[in-house]
Formats: sequence, C-alpha cells, structure tokens
Amino acid sequence: MSPVRRSSATAGNLLYAQSGGVTSVINATAAGVIEAARARGVKVYAARNGILGALREDLIDTSKETASAITALRHTPGGAFGSCRYKLKSLADNRAEYERLIEVFRAHDIRWFLYNGGNDSADTALKLSQIGKTLGYDIRCIGVPKTVDNDLAVTDCCPGFGSVAKYTAISTLEASLDVASMAETSTKVFILEVMGRHAGWIAAAAGLAGEGADAAPHIILFPENAFDEAAFLARVKATVERVGWCTVVASEGVRNAAGQFLAEAGTRDAFGHAQLGGVAPVLAALVKEKLGYKYHWALPDYLQRSARHAASKVDAEQAFAVGRAAVDYALAGMNAVMPVIVRTSDAPYRWKIEPAPLAKIANREKKMPRSFISRDGFGITAAARRYLAPLIRGEAPLPYGRNGLPSYVQLKNAAVTARLPAFKP
Amino acid sequence: MSPVRRSSATAGNLLYAQSGGVTSVINATAAGVIEAARARGVKVYAARNGILGALREDLIDTSKETASAITALRHTPGGAFGSCRYKLKSLADNRAEYERLIEVFRAHDIRWFLYNGGNDSADTALKLSQIGKTLGYDIRCIGVPKTVDNDLAVTDCCPGFGSVAKYTAISTLEASLDVASMAETSTKVFILEVMGRHAGWIAAAAGLAGEGADAAPHIILFPENAFDEAAFLARVKATVERVGWCTVVASEGVRNAAGQFLAEAGTRDAFGHAQLGGVAPVLAALVKEKLGYKYHWALPDYLQRSARHAASKVDAEQAFAVGRAAVDYALAGMNAVMPVIVRTSDAPYRWKIEPAPLAKIANREKKMPRSFISRDGFGITAAARRYLAPLIRGEAPLPYGRNGLPSYVQLKNAAVTARLPAFKP
Repeated sequence: MSPVRRSSATAGNLLYAQSGGVTSVINATAAGVIEAARARGVKVYAARNGILGALREDLIDTSKETASAITALRHTPGGAFGSCRYKLKSLADNRAEYERLIEVFRAHDIRWFLYNGGNDSADTALKLSQIGKTLGYDIRCIGVPKTVDNDLAVTDCCPGFGSVAKYTAISTLEASLDVASMAETSTKVFILEVMGRHAGWIAAAAGLAGEGADAAPHIILFPENAFDEAAFLARVKATVERVGWCTVVASEGVRNAAGQFLAEAGTRDAFGHAQLGGVAPVLAALVKEKLGYKYHWALPDYLQRSARHAASKVDAEQAFAVGRAAVDYALAGMNAVMPVIVRTSDAPYRWKIEPAPLAKIANREKKMPRSFISRDGFGITAAARRYLAPLIRGEAPLPYGRNGLPSYVQLKNAAVTARLPAFKP
Repeated sequence: MSPVRRSSATAGNLLYAQSGGVTSVINATAAGVIEAARARGVKVYAARNGILGALREDLIDTSKETASAITALRHTPGGAFGSCRYKLKSLADNRAEYERLIEVFRAHDIRWFLYNGGNDSADTALKLSQIGKTLGYDIRCIGVPKTVDNDLAVTDCCPGFGSVAKYTAISTLEASLDVASMAETSTKVFILEVMGRHAGWIAAAAGLAGEGADAAPHIILFPENAFDEAAFLARVKATVERVGWCTVVASEGVRNAAGQFLAEAGTRDAFGHAQLGGVAPVLAALVKEKLGYKYHWALPDYLQRSARHAASKVDAEQAFAVGRAAVDYALAGMNAVMPVIVRTSDAPYRWKIEPAPLAKIANREKKMPRSFISRDGFGITAAARRYLAPLIRGEAPLPYGRNGLPSYVQLKNAAVTARLPAFKP
C-alpha cells in the first residue's frame, strides 16, 4: 500500500482520460468529472493524450485549475487534456503495458480510472477493470460515453452526437435557403457531406431540417444502403424539376454495390491517391455529367464535431451528467460499468443516467435501425424523427468575448512530477 | 402618366430586388427597406429572382406580409425574394430590355428602384438610373451594397462580409481545438478552404481566430500571392515540429506562379474534369506526399455565407441600416447613389452611412491592401486586425424554435397580377 494512501472511503486519486475523436461537449464531461470529484474531496489527475499519458506517466494535476476554468470546460470544444487513438492489446499480448499502468497508478495512488470515449475506449476500460483480479492491483474502472458516431451499445444516445446532429440540421437548413434563392440562374444541386463511415446517424439528423417531399434535404444517402446511381439521379432530376433545386446530404461512408466507398472509387488526386476523398465531389461530378446541373458541395469535416457555438442543450447536459455519474459510480465502488443514457419518454423527452456493464458495450456497435430509413432509401421515417428530434433541442449558452469570438478556456495543464523511469508505449 | 399616380412627393411604388450570391444578412437589408418604406406610406414590390423578375413582370407584393414576417427577415439567411446572376447589357446593345423594364415600371407605377448586390448590380442600377434622361422615364435608382467578397469600392466594408468573417474565425478556432487534442496520434495538418476567388478578405478574417506564431491559423494562403510550394511545405513542417500540429486556411482562389488556380491545376475527377475543385484537397495531398503528415480538410462552401446562426452583430446592423438609408435617399429624390459604410473610428469602432455615386462603385473592385498581408505572406498584419476586428464583434440574436432550429421566416411572396404580355429575357 502506498504511503500516501488515506484511510477513508475516498482515499486515493482519480485518473481521467479522453480517448478517440473529440466532440464539442467532451470537455463538459470532464467538467462533470472534476466538479463531482472536487465536491467529494477527491483529486483528479488527467492523462495527457489519453491512455498514452498514463503509460508515459505524463499526468496533469487538475487541482491547479480554478473553479471558473473547470466551469468554462462546459462550453469549450476539443479535448482539453489531449486525446489519442491507441488500443491496449490483451493482457496476454502485451503484459508489459498493463504492468506499466499499474506502476503508474501505484506511484500516484490512482484508485479510480475514468476513460471517456467510444467502443475502443470501453474495451480499454474493461480490460483495465480486470487487473485487480489478474494482476492484484485494486482499481475501479468506469467507461464514460462519448462519440459523434452515436454507435455505442446500450445507451440511448451518445454525448457528442446531439450537437453534431444540431449543427448538421442547422447547416442543411441555412445552405438550402441560399440554394433556393439562387437556383433560377445558378446552383441547382447542393451536396453536403457529413461524417459517418459505417452508420448514417449524422446524415439522418440532417433530415430534421425539414419535413415533406419539397423540404430540404430532398435526398439523404446512407452508408446502410448500396448507392443506386440510377435511382439517385432520377430523384435529383425529379426534385429539381418539381422544386427548382435539390439539397442532398451524403454520409461519407456511402458505398457502391461492390462495397467500395464512393469517395475512394470515384476520384484520384494528382498523385493517384484515392484518399483525397470526399463523396460529395464524386456525386457532384455525377450530377453534372449525367444531368448537366450546376452544383456546389460542402464538406465541413472537423467543423461539424467541434461546433460548440451551435451545440445542443440536451447534449451538453447529458455530457455533463455522465461525467458526474461516473464519479458517483467509481466512488461507490462500482467497477467495469458505464453511465448510460436511458430514455424514459419521447414526448415530453425524459432521460436518466444508469450504470450498464462495460462487457455489454465494449467492441459492440449500435447500428441505425433499418426502420429509421424511409422505404425509398432517401429519407428518414417518423420513428427516426421521434428518436432524433429531442437530441437537438435547446441551445447551450456560450459566453463571447469583446472580440466577437467564443470565450474558450485554455487550461494550465500543469504536469505532475514523474516518479518513474521513462516508458515508450 | 399612370392613372394611379398620386400627387404627393411619395407618389408611386418602390421596387426592391436582390442580386448575385446571397448572404446571411441580405434579408436584413430587405427588412430595412420595407420597414422604412412602410413608415413613409410607400408600397414595396420585390422582383422575384432579381432583375429577371422585373423583366418578366414577376413581382411580389410585400404589403401582403405581416410586420412580424418582415421583422423576421432581419434574422433569416438566403434571399427571401430570390436572386439571380444576370447582367444587363448596355442600352446600345440591348435596348429592348430597357424598354421592357420601363413598360413594367410604368404598368406598376414604379418610381424608385433599389438593387441590392455587388459590383455587377451597382452597374445595373447605374444603367437604369440613366433611363430618365435617355428614355424619358423618371425613376430614382439606388444601389444597395451586399457581398461576402467585401470588394465593393468606396464603402469601408460590405454587408455580408462581417458575418462570413465571424463564421470563419469561429470555425478556425473550434476546428483547431479539435486538431490540437488529436495531434499526438492522428491528424497533424488541418486545411480549411474559404471563399475568395480574387481577394483574400475571408481568408484574412480567419486570422482573427488567434494571434502569435503558435496560435491557429498558422498559415493563411491568399489569392494575392503566387503559391510557393517549397515555402509552404517548410512552414508546415516547422509548425508541426514546434507546435505539434498546423492549421492552414486557404482561399479558394490560390494560384500557382503560372496563374492557374491550384484547385484546377492539381486534381481531376473520374471524368477528367478540373471543376471538381477545391484547393484544400490539393494542399492536403501535397502535405501527405511531401511531408507524410496525416491531414484533414474542410470546405464549408455555402455554409459559410448562409450561417446566420453565427452572424456578426455589426454586420447585421449595417445590413439593416443600408436598407433604411436607401429608402431615405430614394424618397429624397437622389439618383444613382449607394448608401456606403464610412468608418469614423477604429477604436472604439464607429461608423455611419453616407451616399456615394454609383459611378465610382460600378464595375470597380476593391483589392485587399498589400499592407494587410504579413511580410512572409502567410499571415495578417496589425493593420489588417485593426480593420477586421470590429466587423465580427457582437452576436446577432436569433430566435430558436422548440425543435432546436432557428426560426427562419418563409414569406408568402404573393404575386402582383401581371398586366403586360410575357417577355423572355
């Protein structure tokens, strides 16, 4: 037992880390974690750049941050402590990494580990939750949900998704007003490419921008359906002829019947690389080639997942709530669980947080229900609207500076003095 | 003289039309026009799809709209009456069009014409302002400024620009927080492509996102400078090595030393077309090829100029003010002028509206001063900051619906009964 260990139920420190692609509200989760832990008298260390920081003993002492800085995390996008894409191997495959983590945990009296991420991170948290039994180090591991992909199992939705959904619906609405006013002599087809390599959750959210055959978006292309060029072109043509213009929202993961990503199959850069990517320019070229319509396309990329200025209130609140709940679960002695969002009512929308076993979440993927895509494959159903609509409701207040920019916080991120030899993951 | 003509100083109707690419605040100008005219007892017709509507006798009776609908135009992006890209030829080259316009004006007792657009629209308004002398129809023509390109002569800035500038600065800031948190194991270079085919005003505005060598954006590429591949790559490399990551903002109009657009020179689509476009993917491929860094790129396209949800307060106010002033000038009997924005002080920022002759504005283009680009060509100077900073200040309030989306108005756009035979422009 470490000499600094205290005897109370809350003896020891808590380690928090961010993992995978960040979102506009992952720092709201960090704020929830730190505020809840502070209220319980528990010190929070953050690992710099996710699990890598834990392996490298590169820790941040969040107690050096002011209360107002932590509060400001609630409205600051990106990952305040740095994130990473790094998946721990199994204990059998890389025992050295687990032993190193235990060394680091022991050196800094870390008794709780909260890992904030998606499927892979849930897997990492689950593996670490077992080292008490396998390697004899007593630690509580909690997975904390975060992903714009909305593909975590068990939870009704994932913190981060509601805000990208809102950004996408607003952007679809706004750009469509632009296209509508110019269509007489200019652009007739506008294509917005959104994230979603494997599931069409974000593309589906664009459907909230309007309802009815004549409202934008007129066509949504999902990765769940093989791209049918003839049907797509026929729909574009019919829409332009009826409405005067057409807005298409395409998921980056749209594939052809052979299973290839359209973004890779259709275009090559000057060096012959397929990775130049973008399904939107491929669709645009197709529209021009086959129908002769003037087009524009947009690819917001990181803008969509970092747009805290257009975040959903529901999403920001849920992100904060899972952070608080994770601390509660950890300090209550739970292990290998994740706070998940349970929807108890669609209208009025009601939700609560409950613990769910990581074993039911790690490495699983929640697909979008087939019943969310309309029969013609180009839109969303009433069931999808019932699910999606509450997630973009409400605006999340944001302080702006006199310079006209959001006042995002930059933490001090003071390093904890290392006590161990260096380790190269 | 038309039988409906009244004898007072404000006898007759006013025709308002929107022209060229729309902005997130052009409808605020429309609101200024309509509210000012209503207050003076003057009826406003709007031409559907710009000057085309005037030629086709396709007019909208704005008196059918409620006061609250007109107020809602102040926060609704796009062009509420439709816009067009259509340039009138000279009187000598197409006398029939001018005669048709006079027929339409006479049939609807139009005594004032307000044309809301950029350089080309100022030219159209100027040509029409002369038909009193040349064709004997007494009309007052006022150009009303609008363009995200910020390239109108005389006026200090152009309504529409401040909001796209603010959107761009916010997006640069937010996406950079995302990149910063992922750089350790993922994307090291992020490229944001912004509008600006001939001038780097919007790219320059991205520079407001941060200040100092280590703050994003680290590199801005302007159309004013020939692209220097070696210098660009060296700066990217140095930035990644020093900061850990690099944000590049590139104007769509970046050209190589031979004067070709990089977007066209560097990439071909599956059909061999150069128009697929996008300078960002070309730069991204270059970074990957020569430096090996993982990249992401974004191309917000219409999203940037329709993003009323992130509009600048100063911009929205100026857009409204030029609309009101245009009515004042017209009813005061002025002709061939434009209400322009005059900056009377940088700090505190102060501005006023004054009339300027269209002859000094039509067909001219205001370039970005060379003194706004830093000596190394990759950033903005203190002079640029002094000019740009006030234009993105303040947020422009926006009502949101219970559905979480901005409450944008859809006008009735009731058609005025046509009195003339059809005309095909």
